[in-house]
Amino acid sequence: MTDQDEGPRNIFSMPRFGGIVTFFRLPHLPDPEGLDVAVCGVPFDGGITNRNGTRHGPRQVREMTHNHIRPVHPTTGRSPFELCRAADVGDVPINPIDLQDSLERIEAFFARIHAAGAVPLAAGGDHLGSLPILRPLAKDRPVGMVHFDAHTDTYDTVFSDKFKYDNGTPFRRAVEEGILDPKRTIQIGIRGPRFGEEDLAFSLDNGMRVIEIDEYFELGNQGVIAEARRVAGDGPTYISAMCSMMMMKKS
Amino acid sequence: MTDQDEGPRNIFSMPRFGGIVTFFRLPHLPDPEGLDVAVCGVPFDGGITNRNGTRHGPRQVREMTHNHIRPVHPTTGRSPFELCRAADVGDVPINPIDLQDSLERIEAFFARIHAAGAVPLAAGGDHLGSLPILRPLAKDRPVGMVHFDAHTDTYDTVFSDKFKYDNGTPFRRAVEEGILDPKRTIQIGIRGPRFGEEDLAFSLDNGMRVIEIDEYFELGNQGVIAEARRVAGDGPTYISAMCSMMMMKKS
Amino acid sequence: MTDQDEGPRNIFSMPRFGGIVTFFRLPHLPDPEGLDVAVCGVPFDGGITNRNGTRHGPRQVREMTHNHIRPVHPTTGRSPFELCRAADVGDVPINPIDLQDSLERIEAFFARIHAAGAVPLAAGGDHLGSLPILRPLAKDRPVGMVHFDAHTDTYDTVFSDKFKYDNGTPFRRAVEEGILDPKRTIQIGIRGPRFGEEDLAFSLDNGMRVIEIDEYFELGNQGVIAEARRVAGDGPTYISAMCSMMMMKKS
Amino acid sequence: MTDQDEGPRNIFSMPRFGGIVTFFRLPHLPDPEGLDVAVCGVPFDGGITNRNGTRHGPRQVREMTHNHIRPVHPTTGRSPFELCRAADVGDVPINPIDLQDSLERIEAFFARIHAAGAVPLAAGGDHLGSLPILRPLAKDRPVGMVHFDAHTDTYDTVFSDKFKYDNGTPFRRAVEEGILDPKRTIQIGIRGPRFGEEDLAFSLDNGMRVIEIDEYFELGNQGVIAEARRVAGDGPTYISAMCSMMMMKKS
Amino acid sequence: MTDQDEGPRNIFSMPRFGGIVTFFRLPHLPDPEGLDVAVCGVPFDGGITNRNGTRHGPRQVREMTHNHIRPVHPTTGRSPFELCRAADVGDVPINPIDLQDSLERIEAFFARIHAAGAVPLAAGGDHLGSLPILRPLAKDRPVGMVHFDAHTDTYDTVFSDKFKYDNGTPFRRAVEEGILDPKRTIQIGIRGPRFGEEDLAFSLDNGMRVIEIDEYFELGNQGVIAEARRVAGDGPTYISAMCSMMMMKKS
Amino acid sequence: MTDQDEGPRNIFSMPRFGGIVTFFRLPHLPDPEGLDVAVCGVPFDGGITNRNGTRHGPRQVREMTHNHIRPVHPTTGRSPFELCRAADVGDVPINPIDLQDSLERIEAFFARIHAAGAVPLAAGGDHLGSLPILRPLAKDRPVGMVHFDAHTDTYDTVFSDKFKYDNGTPFRRAVEEGILDPKRTIQIGIRGPRFGEEDLAFSLDNGMRVIEIDEYFELGNQGVIAEARRVAGDGPTYISAMCSMMMMKKS
Repeated sequence: MTDQDEGPRNIFSMPRFGGIVTFFRLPHLPDPEGLDVAVCGVPFDGGITNRNGTRHGPRQVREMTHNHIRPVHPTTGRSPFELCRAADVGDVPINPIDLQDSLERIEAFFARIHAAGAVPLAAGGDHLGSLPILRPLAKDRPVGMVHFDAHTDTYDTVFSDKFKYDNGTPFRRAVEEGILDPKRTIQIGIRGPRFGEEDLAFSLDNGMRVIEIDEYFELGNQGVIAEARRVAGDGPTYISAMCSMMMMKKS
Repeated sequence: MTDQDEGPRNIFSMPRFGGIVTFFRLPHLPDPEGLDVAVCGVPFDGGITNRNGTRHGPRQVREMTHNHIRPVHPTTGRSPFELCRAADVGDVPINPIDLQDSLERIEAFFARIHAAGAVPLAAGGDHLGSLPILRPLAKDRPVGMVHFDAHTDTYDTVFSDKFKYDNGTPFRRAVEEGILDPKRTIQIGIRGPRFGEEDLAFSLDNGMRVIEIDEYFELGNQGVIAEARRVAGDGPTYISAMCSMMMMKKS
Repeated sequence: MTDQDEGPRNIFSMPRFGGIVTFFRLPHLPDPEGLDVAVCGVPFDGGITNRNGTRHGPRQVREMTHNHIRPVHPTTGRSPFELCRAADVGDVPINPIDLQDSLERIEAFFARIHAAGAVPLAAGGDHLGSLPILRPLAKDRPVGMVHFDAHTDTYDTVFSDKFKYDNGTPFRRAVEEGILDPKRTIQIGIRGPRFGEEDLAFSLDNGMRVIEIDEYFELGNQGVIAEARRVAGDGPTYISAMCSMMMMKKS
Repeated sequence: MTDQDEGPRNIFSMPRFGGIVTFFRLPHLPDPEGLDVAVCGVPFDGGITNRNGTRHGPRQVREMTHNHIRPVHPTTGRSPFELCRAADVGDVPINPIDLQDSLERIEAFFARIHAAGAVPLAAGGDHLGSLPILRPLAKDRPVGMVHFDAHTDTYDTVFSDKFKYDNGTPFRRAVEEGILDPKRTIQIGIRGPRFGEEDLAFSLDNGMRVIEIDEYFELGNQGVIAEARRVAGDGPTYISAMCSMMMMKKS
Repeated sequence: MTDQDEGPRNIFSMPRFGGIVTFFRLPHLPDPEGLDVAVCGVPFDGGITNRNGTRHGPRQVREMTHNHIRPVHPTTGRSPFELCRAADVGDVPINPIDLQDSLERIEAFFARIHAAGAVPLAAGGDHLGSLPILRPLAKDRPVGMVHFDAHTDTYDTVFSDKFKYDNGTPFRRAVEEGILDPKRTIQIGIRGPRFGEEDLAFSLDNGMRVIEIDEYFELGNQGVIAEARRVAGDGPTYISAMCSMMMMKKS
Repeated sequence: MTDQDEGPRNIFSMPRFGGIVTFFRLPHLPDPEGLDVAVCGVPFDGGITNRNGTRHGPRQVREMTHNHIRPVHPTTGRSPFELCRAADVGDVPINPIDLQDSLERIEAFFARIHAAGAVPLAAGGDHLGSLPILRPLAKDRPVGMVHFDAHTDTYDTVFSDKFKYDNGTPFRRAVEEGILDPKRTIQIGIRGPRFGEEDLAFSLDNGMRVIEIDEYFELGNQGVIAEARRVAGDGPTYISAMCSMMMMKKS
């Protein structure tokens, strides 16, 4: 009864303020089998230590991409949604009252996408959600990472030694678990006041490339892109932009 | 991958802030065939003469009913979603730049629901949208109406004789087209400043029962319900609450 | 340098838009020793299963009571802040990434207030916070409760048998722990759609008095107050109004 | 080029979201000469001791009345704008950096309206603005008052003896100046926490009739209206509803 | 009674938060006769295909320019309101329920301004409003255009061949009608995702100069200004900045 | 009971959404004696001639700095709160209904801070507040100033000769009073429409260095910093950034 199955290709048979809201106006297909790209949401804020609410992030990203997407990239002229089969596979059924159970649910959700051969494109959600996303994707070998953020998120603990999982610790845990290769990791745009030397220590000691904001402006956009390509190399790489997490398989 | 197909019966396998948003958390089934109740949206504000934006109404009603519904009625103890097969059949593909084409699209959308044997439950949208909803439902005989509103919406014209279709005229048009039976129509809660005597004249001259707000408080809730039952009688009746339009077939 | 120590008695030596913000403009005294009433905040939303954000509740209640309080009650003519020594003792240091640790921190905070001989007056925070507040207050004998709410919050579990602590379960847990006396408990204003029969079953089966919203309007304010006094009797009683929790020792 | 001069009589030759915004869609006539009613704004918050911003009140009242007025009263069937000649005469040119100069500007503005023989209908603005409005209107004899408010606004001073003019003192000043007759004054709806006994003392000691909120509900709307008519009698009477001040000459 | 007639020259005899709101604090003169510049509003969103509400644009632009204008340009030192006679001539009386009637009303409004010899300066409103503005201004010969926007607005149709007038088509219609000279048209700042090749095709095929955002940054502000002067030349030229449309006659 | 006394050093023993709100999470010490830096608020908008509300500025700055501060500067690696003893000394008790009394209260408040040997760091509040802050700080000799703003705030009068104290005049008054040395004053970022030549005349005639926005972009950040150091020299200097006023003693 609607044109939802056409995805963003036919933007006007249904006006943009109508219809069921999905990422990029893609069809909603709960089963990732047969997809090239599985777009999904991680409505999670269990790891937030300050102002929460990122559980509402996926719904808001759906609304924004549903209302404003057009199918062709202005510079390359390519139509990404014609190059691959993509769908909105829904949200991880987060457990709002248990952090570890939520991490397990996220891991199971992405394991299923990975097993189906699809590349996940996820909207969060707080950054701790990256850890259980990485687990199934990197179970065979560690992945590299291109990480855009103000903070490194490689702290050890925040409240005490008992509590090692929050929005500041996902990438130290990932290195410790052997699923993130720090030598193929680049952290871009790090800035702002710090708790102390430990803000950068773990990243630098383990060989991550850290581009602080001052170096970013010295290198310029093209220089940073070149450096990211050099560090990440040809292996599979996780791309994380703030709370909007993305994975693009490169080989 | 989600529990969407369970509808509001299992509210917690997916937290309420997760998942694709549908009316009452019902499954999204674009085809009304086989449904008892087809819940749908009419994202329309083509007839609005003051502040527009009701095109965003259905999306907002989806969000509210998705987040807050629980399946059992507290007074009757009944579970409406177990008594009938209901689904979210999506939105009418409104034409935002042509009023008459939009009215035709609304009419076609509800004709298909009616042909499938389902009862429509629609969220608007401006009140002019009631006119093309009534057309297919009343093509065999006029229907009655229980109408909650501040205004009668039985004006003849607003801007000039050329423009007879706006948010103040749907029910005069419906009477003229023979699809609304004024003698089985009750208008409840009429109040506020008026343009003049014509605000009530058409309704009263054609035999509608008008309960202005002062009489409403005199009769009380039970008295008004009794009067509505008396006026509407046993025939098929359209129920309209402000901009949220509902149809419940009674016979 | 400011008049903060005068509390609400001298409202104008500092205009209401100036100064450090405390509950009711009371002095901030972190130590409850010597106080009659210890006003405090429980910035907690670890038990929320829908829209979170109640962690910001205490700060907002401080702002509202700071800006708008005047010291004399209009009906009784009494000045509560002259009848007892009250202070703002600060907030419970909630652990935002661990629910059970947060419950322990709340319990310890209120145990200290109770040991000092002060009556706590707490602003939440989600309703699960009532459970660890009750524990130290009722360690010698169960307390009664006057509870204003739309829901009974006496569910057993929500997500599964593994997760028994959320914003819908505090008062079943409290009865199970022997710290809440259901026969001295009254729940007032229960209303709205339900998950099923279990919404009221535990409360009624254990002897709580439940006044649903229809009965509330039948009894009227004075009738409800009389019924609350009859049920709660003379023993120590916990008063809970939605998310704003209050304790007033009666004997 | 617009229909502004027709006022609220022809609401649709210009849609309600168009045109220059005036009170009730009336014509803007800076000169009150020849008017029966001069509608005007007092964009003043110089007397506010808490949260300011009432300087924006008149503009907001213009917007609301411009967008929503219809010319006929639903109960009486009368068209007030056909019974008298009314216009929007603009705003008092308040001095935002000097309170006393603002009071003089308000007084001069209303003196001119009064001299023209028009009855002022003013939108404020903080309540201190009532004092300089009353001065020219009552220069020949004191006026009565029907005053709807939560507070009596008959305090003597707030910050110290030096500062006697703020939003809590206008009607004590008016009685002291002999321009308000306390025996023909009724204060309706007084409620909320108080600073102390002086909140009501001046009003009661000087013979004002004070209807606190509990008595209001006992008397009911008709009883309060009768009492207001009895107290105010037949003389000229100032009507003040919160911050929206109105004057209606009765004889 | 106010200083409205002085316009922006005397900004402080009435504080900026007071008085009837007009564009730039100019006097409201409904008749354009004798004016050099006629500032006006086009409260129109009949051509909007996504989120509407631009009908409220003129009122908001009035508020912003009323509150913040000062009469002298900081770089040139010139006082534009002393160089010419300008006034707020009000809004086009848009027909909110008929698109073509609205276009005719806009055309008639600007024909009258043009006949009076005034240059219009218009605040919209959606971009389709530019088409009926251009018609009277270009009835003798086509005009050039300097157009700042993200999109070219030279599409042919959006919903189907039946509906050729919306917010994406005004300048194709204008070229077809012979009122816009594409060879004297420059479109500046074009950017963002596209529907396909047709986004630029009509503009380029007809000889418009299109400066996409990447070229904009290469040329710099001075380079773009020079290119705009070269393309537009000496003839009469329409200047359009997003939804804020302006016309400045150059010869 | 809280860790407030530790200030920003231990950010997580209390989560950032909990606790009494102070500037930078510093302890609240009303007495400036013994402090190196006294952080305080000036909740003042008595000098505002347009949209008021800056009286709420200090409370909002407290909230922002409380929630987001971390103790170490990312570029220098220094921990300012370990280099000096700082505290939140509260707000000036502004008189909201008398401008001159407010100026005296501000002066007395900063005189006490100055007498205690502490450097004040103040959050406003409207810019007129800078005048009474400067008076005690400069009573022995005039100070220099580094001033970031769109306007020079060196006007003589705004409404008339009678009213010389508002948000546009503080620095002319300061020069006239001999407490601000114009030759050691630099005004950075001046821009926007002007009332006339007098906007810059006083500043330039008295030897202030004015960097308008165009020159700012020519010089670049490092060039502007060097020029500021050159102009201000080694003497005591007041630093003012918009409404957020700061003083840093340099010798």
